[in-house]
Amino acid sequence: MSTSPPAGASGARLAPEIAARLDRNPDGLLPAVVQQYDTGEVLMLAWMDDEALRRTLETGSATYWSRSRREYWVKGATSGNVQRVVGAALDCDGDTLLIRVDQTGAACHTGARTCFDEGGELPLGADASAADREAP
Amino acid sequence: MSTSPPAGASGARLAPEIAARLDRNPDGLLPAVVQQYDTGEVLMLAWMDDEALRRTLETGSATYWSRSRREYWVKGATSGNVQRVVGAALDCDGDTLLIRVDQTGAACHTGARTCFDEGGELPLGADASAADREAP
Repeated sequence: MSTSPPAGASGARLAPEIAARLDRNPDGLLPAVVQQYDTGEVLMLAWMDDEALRRTLETGSATYWSRSRREYWVKGATSGNVQRVVGAALDCDGDTLLIRVDQTGAACHTGARTCFDEGGELPLGADASAADREAP
Repeated sequence: MSTSPPAGASGARLAPEIAARLDRNPDGLLPAVVQQYDTGEVLMLAWMDDEALRRTLETGSATYWSRSRREYWVKGATSGNVQRVVGAALDCDGDTLLIRVDQTGAACHTGARTCFDEGGELPLGADASAADREAP
């Protein structure tokens, strides 16, 4: 789809034994599920390339790749709503990350605690389908 | 990148007020974070198109789109490790789903409780970087 994001400017790179396990999408990215470490709340989903993952693991400050701005962003750098990294795991097939953090304040840019609080619940059952309403 | 998955064969379709809120990737899919409703464990990440979401919400059995097999799959249909849907939410910008389920048995195809248990922890701190090892 597009070219891979640039490598780290510092010359540091993700440890090869970690990099070898990553199954990246065509943009060189993996989805990162971000979870509050103690309450278990799923706060948000963001995207990481190798360098964002390296910065996250090494600095302990959650750092993502912005697909819209095409730049790295340290969560909370402007808002103060930082994410201190407590742990990180890769899934069974290496294509998804789980980042466990201690979230200061709101995770969502809207001010909601989580991005899913902001988006809200979807209806279960027949209300999810439009089929009945198409009957004459 | 590729054509969208087919619509539901039954003629039913996702309620338009839900469909209008979805921001799909170029393949017509959204990542779905799957969480055990009571313990908060993040079990896995899978992918949904409109029809997988409709089936999930309407039937209460978590149903995903397999990107490799290009077909719908009801989680646990062969293994018995079903996911009963307790709730579902969309995030703030409509591009990620959170599905809260009651997982029977293992969520991971390897037999591990979660896909992140199977993949395992990544190192924090300097072990995440290869930079030091490149020094002469």
